[in-house]
Amino acid sequence: MTTTRTETDSFGPLEVPSDKYWGAQTQRSLKNFKIGGETMPTPLIRALGVIKRSAALANIALDNIDPKVGETIAAAALEVAENKLDDNFPLVVWQTGSGTQSNMNANEVIANRAIEMLGGEIGSKDPVHPNDHVNRSQSSNDTFPTAMHIAAAEEVVHRLVPALQTLRNALNDKAESFKDIIKIGRTHLQDATPLTLGQEFSGYVAQLDNGLRRVDNALQALYPLAQGGTAVGTGLNAKPGFAERFAEEVASFTKLPFVTAPNKFEALAAHDAMVEISGALNTLAASLFKIANDIRLLGSGPRSGLGEISLPENEPGSSIMPGKVNPTQCEAMTMVCTQVMGNHVTVTVAGSQGHFELNVFKPVMIYNVLQSIRIVADACVSFTDNCVVGIEPNRENIAGLMERSLMLVTALAPHIGYDKATEIAKSAHKNGTTLREEALRLGYVSAEDFDRIVKPEDMVGPKA
Amino acid sequence: MTTTRTETDSFGPLEVPSDKYWGAQTQRSLKNFKIGGETMPTPLIRALGVIKRSAALANIALDNIDPKVGETIAAAALEVAENKLDDNFPLVVWQTGSGTQSNMNANEVIANRAIEMLGGEIGSKDPVHPNDHVNRSQSSNDTFPTAMHIAAAEEVVHRLVPALQTLRNALNDKAESFKDIIKIGRTHLQDATPLTLGQEFSGYVAQLDNGLRRVDNALQALYPLAQGGTAVGTGLNAKPGFAERFAEEVASFTKLPFVTAPNKFEALAAHDAMVEISGALNTLAASLFKIANDIRLLGSGPRSGLGEISLPENEPGSSIMPGKVNPTQCEAMTMVCTQVMGNHVTVTVAGSQGHFELNVFKPVMIYNVLQSIRIVADACVSFTDNCVVGIEPNRENIAGLMERSLMLVTALAPHIGYDKATEIAKSAHKNGTTLREEALRLGYVSAEDFDRIVKPEDMVGPKA
Amino acid sequence: MTTTRTETDSFGPLEVPSDKYWGAQTQRSLKNFKIGGETMPTPLIRALGVIKRSAALANIALDNIDPKVGETIAAAALEVAENKLDDNFPLVVWQTGSGTQSNMNANEVIANRAIEMLGGEIGSKDPVHPNDHVNRSQSSNDTFPTAMHIAAAEEVVHRLVPALQTLRNALNDKAESFKDIIKIGRTHLQDATPLTLGQEFSGYVAQLDNGLRRVDNALQALYPLAQGGTAVGTGLNAKPGFAERFAEEVASFTKLPFVTAPNKFEALAAHDAMVEISGALNTLAASLFKIANDIRLLGSGPRSGLGEISLPENEPGSSIMPGKVNPTQCEAMTMVCTQVMGNHVTVTVAGSQGHFELNVFKPVMIYNVLQSIRIVADACVSFTDNCVVGIEPNRENIAGLMERSLMLVTALAPHIGYDKATEIAKSAHKNGTTLREEALRLGYVSAEDFDRIVKPEDMVGPKA
Amino acid sequence: MTTTRTETDSFGPLEVPSDKYWGAQTQRSLKNFKIGGETMPTPLIRALGVIKRSAALANIALDNIDPKVGETIAAAALEVAENKLDDNFPLVVWQTGSGTQSNMNANEVIANRAIEMLGGEIGSKDPVHPNDHVNRSQSSNDTFPTAMHIAAAEEVVHRLVPALQTLRNALNDKAESFKDIIKIGRTHLQDATPLTLGQEFSGYVAQLDNGLRRVDNALQALYPLAQGGTAVGTGLNAKPGFAERFAEEVASFTKLPFVTAPNKFEALAAHDAMVEISGALNTLAASLFKIANDIRLLGSGPRSGLGEISLPENEPGSSIMPGKVNPTQCEAMTMVCTQVMGNHVTVTVAGSQGHFELNVFKPVMIYNVLQSIRIVADACVSFTDNCVVGIEPNRENIAGLMERSLMLVTALAPHIGYDKATEIAKSAHKNGTTLREEALRLGYVSAEDFDRIVKPEDMVGPKA
Repeated sequence: MTTTRTETDSFGPLEVPSDKYWGAQTQRSLKNFKIGGETMPTPLIRALGVIKRSAALANIALDNIDPKVGETIAAAALEVAENKLDDNFPLVVWQTGSGTQSNMNANEVIANRAIEMLGGEIGSKDPVHPNDHVNRSQSSNDTFPTAMHIAAAEEVVHRLVPALQTLRNALNDKAESFKDIIKIGRTHLQDATPLTLGQEFSGYVAQLDNGLRRVDNALQALYPLAQGGTAVGTGLNAKPGFAERFAEEVASFTKLPFVTAPNKFEALAAHDAMVEISGALNTLAASLFKIANDIRLLGSGPRSGLGEISLPENEPGSSIMPGKVNPTQCEAMTMVCTQVMGNHVTVTVAGSQGHFELNVFKPVMIYNVLQSIRIVADACVSFTDNCVVGIEPNRENIAGLMERSLMLVTALAPHIGYDKATEIAKSAHKNGTTLREEALRLGYVSAEDFDRIVKPEDMVGPKA
Repeated sequence: MTTTRTETDSFGPLEVPSDKYWGAQTQRSLKNFKIGGETMPTPLIRALGVIKRSAALANIALDNIDPKVGETIAAAALEVAENKLDDNFPLVVWQTGSGTQSNMNANEVIANRAIEMLGGEIGSKDPVHPNDHVNRSQSSNDTFPTAMHIAAAEEVVHRLVPALQTLRNALNDKAESFKDIIKIGRTHLQDATPLTLGQEFSGYVAQLDNGLRRVDNALQALYPLAQGGTAVGTGLNAKPGFAERFAEEVASFTKLPFVTAPNKFEALAAHDAMVEISGALNTLAASLFKIANDIRLLGSGPRSGLGEISLPENEPGSSIMPGKVNPTQCEAMTMVCTQVMGNHVTVTVAGSQGHFELNVFKPVMIYNVLQSIRIVADACVSFTDNCVVGIEPNRENIAGLMERSLMLVTALAPHIGYDKATEIAKSAHKNGTTLREEALRLGYVSAEDFDRIVKPEDMVGPKA
Repeated sequence: MTTTRTETDSFGPLEVPSDKYWGAQTQRSLKNFKIGGETMPTPLIRALGVIKRSAALANIALDNIDPKVGETIAAAALEVAENKLDDNFPLVVWQTGSGTQSNMNANEVIANRAIEMLGGEIGSKDPVHPNDHVNRSQSSNDTFPTAMHIAAAEEVVHRLVPALQTLRNALNDKAESFKDIIKIGRTHLQDATPLTLGQEFSGYVAQLDNGLRRVDNALQALYPLAQGGTAVGTGLNAKPGFAERFAEEVASFTKLPFVTAPNKFEALAAHDAMVEISGALNTLAASLFKIANDIRLLGSGPRSGLGEISLPENEPGSSIMPGKVNPTQCEAMTMVCTQVMGNHVTVTVAGSQGHFELNVFKPVMIYNVLQSIRIVADACVSFTDNCVVGIEPNRENIAGLMERSLMLVTALAPHIGYDKATEIAKSAHKNGTTLREEALRLGYVSAEDFDRIVKPEDMVGPKA
Repeated sequence: MTTTRTETDSFGPLEVPSDKYWGAQTQRSLKNFKIGGETMPTPLIRALGVIKRSAALANIALDNIDPKVGETIAAAALEVAENKLDDNFPLVVWQTGSGTQSNMNANEVIANRAIEMLGGEIGSKDPVHPNDHVNRSQSSNDTFPTAMHIAAAEEVVHRLVPALQTLRNALNDKAESFKDIIKIGRTHLQDATPLTLGQEFSGYVAQLDNGLRRVDNALQALYPLAQGGTAVGTGLNAKPGFAERFAEEVASFTKLPFVTAPNKFEALAAHDAMVEISGALNTLAASLFKIANDIRLLGSGPRSGLGEISLPENEPGSSIMPGKVNPTQCEAMTMVCTQVMGNHVTVTVAGSQGHFELNVFKPVMIYNVLQSIRIVADACVSFTDNCVVGIEPNRENIAGLMERSLMLVTALAPHIGYDKATEIAKSAHKNGTTLREEALRLGYVSAEDFDRIVKPEDMVGPKA
């Protein structure tokens, strides 16, 4: 049996577990929203702590709160920001669409923790009231979107970008080390003209370089914060200067260039910045899908596939087929990509559904954005460490596949014309012969010229 | 410090926590797939238990396993099926795309638990081997899709359908009790001809009736099971009759009409049945979005909205605006709907990406399908209990809004023609007058006829 | 210079091209909605003709219209139903969300054509008025969704289903003719145990059989018609019996089992039946993507890919690489699949956005559903005729790839255990040897046993 | 009967209509791809003309073509670039995934037109050969993605951006002119604290300002061109310097800052830039949905809705309800938004599916991107001209709704605390009284203080 204490809100008293700091509104949400099990992500909880601390400090600076109360709120909020009180945040994503209950969860936990610090009675709202003090100058309507921006920006900067750079660099190292390995190109999955394995990998690097730029573009839209808009964007019940001072505190604490949003109405009622960052993740998902898919195709085999590269063998691949090894990191990565694509649809639809002064799809939006960031970042690191760094070229296979290709005939076309070159390739295909045999047989080119022109090593770049 | 024991697989030895039953392949997955935190859903774990139990019993029946070993496996598997060993299933969704590691997780846990039951040494694989005994006649490639079908079907039958029926019935009760309340209709969000509040709610009931039919259609496609196909669908290493006997055991245990799939190649390589059930959930999401959105619009106000109905007041609505109450259950529901729409895209893309004999997006597909089922079902119950049952009509508001509508003029059109009726409505709109005033002023109808024809209570159905 | 005549509506006069039958409201829509160029699909125009004809006949039967006027309307409407007046339907999809303007387009064209038939003056609305006569007993709000159902159902029955059956049968023919060709299986794109090429293709057939069932399920939801609900679902201004009689006329004319919808409120305000059929198409898209993708992978090469099958060569594949041939039908098919997946998201979001008595995303929903039906159906026929029927197995390649596979070792596992079998496969992989060599070297099996057990032809089914 | 001439390609002769310039490969595509009716968009055809002209000029500059042949190609290509030969481009989107057939369509049309200009025989390939001359230094694989970028960039710059600015400015004009109209705010669709109508509209302006920035970011990724990569990205068969010179010609002709892509492998095999611009459009769709939806809700009524604004009356709204006027422009806009969301999913999935050196979903990607650009742009102009500029505030309604709101109580909270303020609001709601009455009755504030504090005009901004 858990012991309880009584907490109250304007709807009346409720029993709350004694060992938790939360109050009546949190408890009421637990009762009213028994939906799924997805609780608010921890980066969002941290962000609420950052906000409550910054708001308290801004209120102190503006003479809008008793300094002792304000400082104690800041101290309690710091514990939330450091994720020390995560088990006091039990609420699920599927609650009120403004995130009010999670904002009140933060207000209640911080108020009770501050009361405790000040030697008061938990639950008494004295000397620290969750609404009048912890939430001072704030509304859920500006607080929650502020938390969305802080959480997403921190996760992008500290988790996603380093992970993408890790993968980008590992692929670039491979591109460098594979730069002299000439292989067959494939277009339409059919044999085409040659390129180097390094060139093939350089395309992946270029995709990620662009991806990093896209993420950085979208990151900029996360720095403007809604806080200061209060209930509907007007800033009612906040002091002039609160929004700016608050943003400075957040920027100073997080060391990220947060600023106050130039238009608070947009910041409460629309979350286009969330759709934007989700869009950057969605484009990354398209890129990563292609890269991971290529790598598993190149590594297919070991004996009856393309087999141009070998992937690290990390675990038994089959419960029934002994000795089987599979491209499991590619599979985890491509599954993650499909999740991100779906999450993006959720974020897009949710983002389109604001009404007047508020979008009430906030929790589902940040839940999906944070999940996408987390799994893309983690998958990039896992894919790098457990796959990319261990990729080895199978030089013999690569050479064999390249040499028998009929598409080397392309080098002849500028010399003998497209139509004759076609005839050579078609004959070789039909007769199961080599291009050289057919070219000479048809008399379209001399043996010397053929050997001079059809050289794979001269076909991997423009030629004067 | 957790104590450990040594477990081995074909890749070598690994330290595993002593208090857990899992073995080397599970531990290896933990090390190789540090991606996100989404672990395999518990209905899927239960399903793996059901499968291992049923396979052991089928193997016994076909004389394909030592009965004592087989019965002990069945007993250990039953504990998994009863979700008693859930904390022995630590693996995340973002693993190998065949779910091999979760299948091996089940094999390892059951093998060790069976060894324990038989007094052997955990980790020794003797007298129960995870592959040779627990996984006998099975491959991950047929086991995991079988688990997907069992888990999804059980969740549909035991969770989703009852929840939908609950909501459907609650809405139907309201439709019945509102059947005489005449109100203004709205098309294009603009005033239209009248209907009853009961008729309006009857549309929601019809949507859910259809939704139940859609779910039932899709459910049928979940009953055929892949098991017996083993590695690639051929049934290699399974005895003739295993597939059928296995399905009977599952049907008997779950009391659901599972059968063996007529084509195992399809059952391993495609998961169209998952796309289908996800599609049924997606259509439900569209329905539920409309219903929840209508209800919050009807309840908008309390003083400056439409205010035709009152929703139950469940919690304080605002951290800054005292006394505010919000349609929070509608918000949770519509957020859930957007999640389901996004999940459906994930499932669709993942479902399209099979290659040859296997689709390797299995974990992400079942994760999304089970999440969608769970949150839709829970949201239906929460929405019913905390919103629908407490909806009250605001009869005075309803009557006031209806009476002033200009669209009652529609009843005149069959008598005086569309063009003259238009003139009456436009004049009343322009002059801020009533239809009756304008109709008489323009001389298009007598007062008696007007009063006889323009009767809202006669406008809510066809008239002879 | 086009000559014009003057047409009027309640907003005033407008100039209309003399050689067209449309009236003022159509012309006004052209002026007000200069958006894109996607005009209403012709199956929808036909459906409007079917509706106007059926409504006139029902009105005649119910003594609700002058028979001569009614019959002339029916005659003029028949021309629309036979797509003879398509160039009189210039309106785009991006118009009013109820499709009112396209309904009025039909009313105006039919009214003027009927006037012409009766020797009256086009544009005079006498003796046939577009609203009072052609639209009698109807509203756009029930007419347009009825047209959506008729158009979608006819296209499903007459275009989609035959096309799917064509492809299904062609694949089945291949499955039959390939039933003895044993080939390597591939799971995770890696070598796996063998199956027959016929078994592989049988999976595709099973996918399409299920797809046909899914389409048929969804088709049933298209047969109930909204007509008779008039403006808001109540049936105001329609006679009792009109809805039923109307549906009978439609059923008789189209020879499809249309009925009147049991709940008209749902039929106007929600289009879940459209989301449902779109979902069936979406599942088909997932199936077809897998099939077409497999086929191009199997046909990859000709010399440096898997090359197990040859696809018909239909056209030159490259503007630069002479002799290149590509799997272009697979490419058209997979592009179509991505379009259908996207269209489904459009239909889903649109379907969720009804308000009260009307969903005003009707045109965009039917545009996407009809496009999806059309391109899937056409692509199935094109893919069949230009690809599937001409697929030839490359028996030599198939045999070579199969024989060298290490996964044949799986047959040994029931005899020597998974762990020893793994050792054999790993040694062969490491040493570049055969399974047989390693099995004998390690002494796990005799030569006789190996030859008896490891027989690919015995590995394509369960064994007693 | 159309007369024909014989054209040939490597697959043999074909009859082609005499009055068209296209050749055998175009005709072959018409025969092989009878799928749907969506032909290649005209901006893409123009882009192919721009490319062929620029390539000819670059080849001349690099001494890689006979100047007379090159100049005539440039002249013929200019006609394509000016969309004068659009009816010579009959091919559909659902063709080969590289767009090879449309590239050959351009090569054939330009070759024949150039032959004509030079007095040769159409169809003779002499003195201008479609592959050897028109396509010189090019492959479809670099040409088609170059065309995608040119077409998308031109449409963004010349159509989308001006349209967005038009709408943004119209909304900004309204924001300015409504800046003193105080109205009730609404959060969760429930009454909230006041703001000005101008502030509400300023949020829309901020959304579009951000949208313009997003589009501009994505536009930058369209300027790098694939051309010069030829078949697989290596530049085989192009001269050094061709890529750069080509890009200069395109930039000079289009007056847009096109450059050669730094990595051609990425440029052929991935189309992340297309996913990116589609993502920007998708975010815009979310923004525009919110704006259009708000406006129709604000304009709902005329008598039984919110009715805070009046929208222009553009056309009769109903075929059955006389005098009805609907927010049709909002409907067209929101339908467009759902189309863009769906198109984005298509583009994303297609973009993820490249294999090795080529993505073969090019036509479907550019078709969707160009459709999204076109309909968003057109809808913005239509919405501006036919709706936004004519919006009028209903000042009386606005004032009435605002004054009766209970949420004005929020201004009291900083003075008497959240809990007492709640009590006042709840009492007023329960008793149907005013806040002032309850505040005084409960004795929480004096009449003077109430009147001083609760002033809507002081509640639309922060207060010292």
